[in-house]
Amino acid sequence: MCGKTCAQSIYSTLAANIKILYDNNIIPGLGVILVGSRPDSQTYVNMKSKMCEKYNITSKVIKLSEEVDEATLLNEVDLLNNNNDIHGILIQLPLPSHIDEDKVLNRVDRIKDVDGFHIENVGRLSVNKNPEYYPCTPHGCIELLKYYNYDIQGKHAVVVGRSRIVGLPLAHLLLHNNATVSICHSKTIDLHSITRTADLLFVACGQAKYITSEMVKDDAIVIDIGINPVDDSTKKNGYRLVGDVDYDMLVNKVKAITPVPGGVGPMTIAMLLQHTVSAAQRQLIAI
Amino acid sequence: MCGKTCAQSIYSTLAANIKILYDNNIIPGLGVILVGSRPDSQTYVNMKSKMCEKYNITSKVIKLSEEVDEATLLNEVDLLNNNNDIHGILIQLPLPSHIDEDKVLNRVDRIKDVDGFHIENVGRLSVNKNPEYYPCTPHGCIELLKYYNYDIQGKHAVVVGRSRIVGLPLAHLLLHNNATVSICHSKTIDLHSITRTADLLFVACGQAKYITSEMVKDDAIVIDIGINPVDDSTKKNGYRLVGDVDYDMLVNKVKAITPVPGGVGPMTIAMLLQHTVSAAQRQLIAI
Repeated sequence: MCGKTCAQSIYSTLAANIKILYDNNIIPGLGVILVGSRPDSQTYVNMKSKMCEKYNITSKVIKLSEEVDEATLLNEVDLLNNNNDIHGILIQLPLPSHIDEDKVLNRVDRIKDVDGFHIENVGRLSVNKNPEYYPCTPHGCIELLKYYNYDIQGKHAVVVGRSRIVGLPLAHLLLHNNATVSICHSKTIDLHSITRTADLLFVACGQAKYITSEMVKDDAIVIDIGINPVDDSTKKNGYRLVGDVDYDMLVNKVKAITPVPGGVGPMTIAMLLQHTVSAAQRQLIAI
Repeated sequence: MCGKTCAQSIYSTLAANIKILYDNNIIPGLGVILVGSRPDSQTYVNMKSKMCEKYNITSKVIKLSEEVDEATLLNEVDLLNNNNDIHGILIQLPLPSHIDEDKVLNRVDRIKDVDGFHIENVGRLSVNKNPEYYPCTPHGCIELLKYYNYDIQGKHAVVVGRSRIVGLPLAHLLLHNNATVSICHSKTIDLHSITRTADLLFVACGQAKYITSEMVKDDAIVIDIGINPVDDSTKKNGYRLVGDVDYDMLVNKVKAITPVPGGVGPMTIAMLLQHTVSAAQRQLIAI
């Protein structure tokens, strides 16, 4: 499964919708708050901004120092909440440890919460009651399966990892799509015995090439959500990115698998842009 | 496992805490809203009120007709929210179909939400971020296991049923207690193959004696959350209550099992009273 191909198809639809917005004098806008100078966070924000630019979505990146105090950060969220040119707001995680992450996420106006991390959207997703937006990475995984016409209903979906950003919301989305869902994590004993029964296996455990051939059945569909840098002296920056799944070992065994990079990553960004355009479309409807 | 025995132990602790509240002139109070005249809802409310009375918790039951309009119902919630003698509020479900159930549940003051159904408490439970209260039935299941010293961490917990009242919040609680969690439901294919791998099996599917011997492994611990009336001409009211598990078939096979009645039911009520007392204790701390 190629995330780039699927994302491209989403962007085609988006481009048409963005044109309609422009025709109505609405320029979709994404506000991003980036705190500190983590290289990975900077890379992610740059990738998102670049893609926004490509599709004529304004992206306003607020960069704050690692030492920023909570009140200042909350004030920046308020400014974005009250800015009519900003339709979607993204708080790049993680935030420094002296900041109450929940307080910041819950300060985002719920209808601008394109990442789906506001606690009310989390609750709504949990009980399948129309959250404003789904978290981008889990949503991207579901859209990728749908694009390739892989059924979810009635399948045994195994999710390895239970983070609030990926594993948990993904489990909810799968459940609401009528999969039987198993959630595994660091405290799971005999992980193999569960992953081997997966029709759909989603891996977000943050460990390079953790899932190997003997942990997966032959006709499984494997979605690799990990992004891990591993040393590689042949690369100019000294590393390359690999997933949580041993792709080379599995690619000729399973029914389908996503590569890293080029799998879930592009889908996450496509979903972020899609959510931002949806948010802007509300303004269109409100005209 | 006997729910009555465990509940009794909880009431002993509660009674001491209630005495302290009385010594400080605080009478714990539970407000209950009952809409319509469903016999099962009336029975549940009566059982809860009776137990409150036994332990010196005031229970104020607001009975509204099946035809009540939403505004009137919301106003009754507001009155309970603003009533300083009421520490916990329970909306007996289900509500009639012309009422927006979510709107009513979310109107309950979050700190009086002793049933844990307010969407923010649902979200907080989902991501393990200190909900004010856990839903009573799932909480009762966890307390019952702890009372009997059965480990949850690392066990494979299978939940049959995905309701917002039982199955979903139970899955979250098990996950946060470090179980590996599988959620099965009406769309699950080959349920047997999953239930047979359960160390801990929780059944809340609403079908009398649905789980039979061959669906469970020998050393499983089985928690039966179902309550189904079945015809029984030897009873004076013409029926008796059975669970979702065939107790007689399983009792000599599995490691432990809860009966119906006398298993999870008494635990649900004990948790409701415990949450109400906790809510009243906040007033004590605030003095």
